[in-house]
Amino acid sequence: MPEQLERVGLQNLLESEIPLSRALAVQVREASADEIRLVAPLEPNHNHQGTAFGGSLYSVAVLAAWSLAQCWLRSEGLRANVVIQSGDLDYLEPVSANFEAVARGPDREASVRLKRTLLRHGRGRIELQSDILCEGRCCARFSGRFVLLQATSGA
Amino acid sequence: MPEQLERVGLQNLLESEIPLSRALAVQVREASADEIRLVAPLEPNHNHQGTAFGGSLYSVAVLAAWSLAQCWLRSEGLRANVVIQSGDLDYLEPVSANFEAVARGPDREASVRLKRTLLRHGRGRIELQSDILCEGRCCARFSGRFVLLQATSGA
Repeated sequence: MPEQLERVGLQNLLESEIPLSRALAVQVREASADEIRLVAPLEPNHNHQGTAFGGSLYSVAVLAAWSLAQCWLRSEGLRANVVIQSGDLDYLEPVSANFEAVARGPDREASVRLKRTLLRHGRGRIELQSDILCEGRCCARFSGRFVLLQATSGA
Repeated sequence: MPEQLERVGLQNLLESEIPLSRALAVQVREASADEIRLVAPLEPNHNHQGTAFGGSLYSVAVLAAWSLAQCWLRSEGLRANVVIQSGDLDYLEPVSANFEAVARGPDREASVRLKRTLLRHGRGRIELQSDILCEGRCCARFSGRFVLLQATSGA
């Protein structure tokens, strides 16, 4: 039966495995294979202009995408290492308040294809996006290419 | 006379203006308009696999590129806000020890052209790279597009 990685579980995973999460003060608001929402306060993440530091925005965005891949794997009953190959962030507007990173899961067709590739070849690629939202506006857009390397297939 | 932003000055600037620098435990090793070298320990920046978190690598790389732009401005006697438009990081190899981000300045021709554009139009664009080095190997490569928006021309 697929293991569910829920909100509290993901929060603990991020804080224990990736300590920078604590400095970023990331809080998991939603966690499912369909959607990850991570929120972060401006204060520990500000820059010289009082807006969010570009490195903080990238870090929260990549955590959202990585978390999505983790939740997707668990929902499919699979285990794999999730390794980033490249990440791009486009900064659209300054982030001048607390912000949120939202990553959405692959659609049904992409999900079926990825699972099949992973089971057949022991690895698969996935491109994941996350948006940085602040006060209802999309202020930055992340796109990352990840490789999933299967460890052992799930139950 | 151009104001020099030296190693200690840059360290103070990063720590006071961009607090995530302290969590990343970044130390300035070299600071000039020609080269920035920032070092960071693995320990506060590790991920679930014991290698460096992709967000930490991006953050240190973008700090090196931003610092380069700051040092270049001061060496030219200019003042401008440095705003990032986009940043890309290619992950080439896992970073399994303390690491360094190295950004190098624009060549003489590009420097002259940028200064002229900035003085004439009050803004200019620059693309800056930084390499993440670990144990003598280039493990990741950052490229960022920045806009310089002139505040007041220097003395």
